Amino acid sequence: MIRIGIMGYGNLGRGIECAIKQNPDMELKAVFTRRDPETVQILTDNVPVYRAADAINRKDEIDVLILCGGSATDLPEQTKEYAKYFNVVDSFDTHAKIPEHFDNVNKSAVESDHIAVISVGWDPGMFSLNRLYANAILPSGNDYTFWGKGVSQGHSDAIRRVEGVQDGKQYTIPVEKALASVRNGENPQLSVREKHTRECFVVPKPGADLDKITKEIQEMPNYFADYDTTVHFITQEELDRNHGGIPHGGFVIRSGKTGWNEENSHVIEYSLKLDSNPEFTASVIAAYARAAFRMKADGLKGCKTVFDIAPAYLCAMSNEQLRAQML
Amino acid sequence: MIRIGIMGYGNLGRGIECAIKQNPDMELKAVFTRRDPETVQILTDNVPVYRAADAINRKDEIDVLILCGGSATDLPEQTKEYAKYFNVVDSFDTHAKIPEHFDNVNKSAVESDHIAVISVGWDPGMFSLNRLYANAILPSGNDYTFWGKGVSQGHSDAIRRVEGVQDGKQYTIPVEKALASVRNGENPQLSVREKHTRECFVVPKPGADLDKITKEIQEMPNYFADYDTTVHFITQEELDRNHGGIPHGGFVIRSGKTGWNEENSHVIEYSLKLDSNPEFTASVIAAYARAAFRMKADGLKGCKTVFDIAPAYLCAMSNEQLRAQML
Repeated sequence: MIRIGIMGYGNLGRGIECAIKQNPDMELKAVFTRRDPETVQILTDNVPVYRAADAINRKDEIDVLILCGGSATDLPEQTKEYAKYFNVVDSFDTHAKIPEHFDNVNKSAVESDHIAVISVGWDPGMFSLNRLYANAILPSGNDYTFWGKGVSQGHSDAIRRVEGVQDGKQYTIPVEKALASVRNGENPQLSVREKHTRECFVVPKPGADLDKITKEIQEMPNYFADYDTTVHFITQEELDRNHGGIPHGGFVIRSGKTGWNEENSHVIEYSLKLDSNPEFTASVIAAYARAAFRMKADGLKGCKTVFDIAPAYLCAMSNEQLRAQML
Repeated sequence: MIRIGIMGYGNLGRGIECAIKQNPDMELKAVFTRRDPETVQILTDNVPVYRAADAINRKDEIDVLILCGGSATDLPEQTKEYAKYFNVVDSFDTHAKIPEHFDNVNKSAVESDHIAVISVGWDPGMFSLNRLYANAILPSGNDYTFWGKGVSQGHSDAIRRVEGVQDGKQYTIPVEKALASVRNGENPQLSVREKHTRECFVVPKPGADLDKITKEIQEMPNYFADYDTTVHFITQEELDRNHGGIPHGGFVIRSGKTGWNEENSHVIEYSLKLDSNPEFTASVIAAYARAAFRMKADGLKGCKTVFDIAPAYLCAMSNEQLRAQML
């Protein structure tokens, strides 16, 4: 059994707990929280909730500690720190800062003889893997990544900061025409606006100026100004009833040429359609927690990304079973 | 530079030659053939063509020998033999015999300290990888593989053996309705007939009985009897003009559930649309030849499949570049 600890019990932590239930070779050993443990109710029977500060004292009870904090401030500190005591997995997703995060975490993990897997999930994660495989196979070609249809937490937060807005949710939606052109191997040059649209469902405060809210959202720099953005006003009841989920997904497509004169075209496409972004991310992380446990058992150490991990490490089946059943 | 040798110069061998041209870190060192080398005209300037029997004498000039023979009789003998002298890559695709092939090749490769990568291509190969990743992520779910639209060599050969047939080509086509149901997360149970249809383009010999040909094809056991099969009669000119290519492709889909009560659905889909089946297969093989070269340099040995090879080995970029640009 692989003994898992969860650090941080929000949507992602709860997703990890659910994923462990689906993997018979894993057991949830403890949940750690910065809140008062008395106030945290988890789903699994007979598993303790401890203060985050107690984690290090329990290092011998846990094979892999999964870090469920945020990328902005939590993980840059936590991953390198906990990698001193545990094999760890995180979902650090600030793409531009991955090289720095890798170096920091690698230092801790190498010195302490642990495996630390960073940036696990679907983007970075499964989408990154598909970019790499497709580029390795088709060196002459173009990459396209589309996100959605799905909820963007950052854009939903931005809407809620607009004056007169009580609540809101934002969906990122790939433009079908752009997708079709890419799939057709037309290798289009696509602007930001041509790739995605943004759809907002907004609950206004009583008496708010709806035109002003719409204008402010649509013209918001960085978040909405470069996109075609639709704003719908709805009631809080409608928002809660119809927009309570956290769906997401997207498409990674590479189109490329082969042949002596590059006369043949090929399209490689990977897509995800997810009812729950955090639960799917958690499911990817659970598989990489298994890999971390096995790589440590194989005498490996240091920081790893999805690029560094042989696929067989992820699956509960033996190598013989994999070859017989999946190859 | 990775010095590549090609054993066997048919469609796949020519595809490897084209792929090497697209990868600046590779050079074609020699082509080996069972034909008279004088009769084999390759595309690359100033690269020698030798007799197959001469390959072993040239082992020090070649880093990776790519075996382009067939799975029925060539590769079961060749891969284990050449793995004694070379790092090798093959595209052995008789799924049921992979475990036996692996064991034979592994013995040679371990004893002689080489890397031998078997069963590389898209199925087995990229499709296998996607089955594995998706199963590791979503342990509770269903797998679906659809092939096509594409030319099946085996079925085209079967058509050509029918009395009264001069020439012919067979396309395997996924049933759109079945694909849509799978993508919708409906987890259908699909019979063979419900997944694929078969479309045949047949050139009859002069005076042949067309109804008899149609009936014989449609009722042919193993090949056509279990499918809805359409037969079109065309002229040799039409066949040559419109059906000269070797396109293929397909879809690997896993739909699965997550959540404490498996209340959320997810669909993972990987698809390929290929103008040239052998050139795409060759492009995958070229990437795994790079991996074989690097794994050998890292002191590894033995038989490997796509499951055993960390993705970063495939790509010409350094690990630092991959993390900065692809993660």
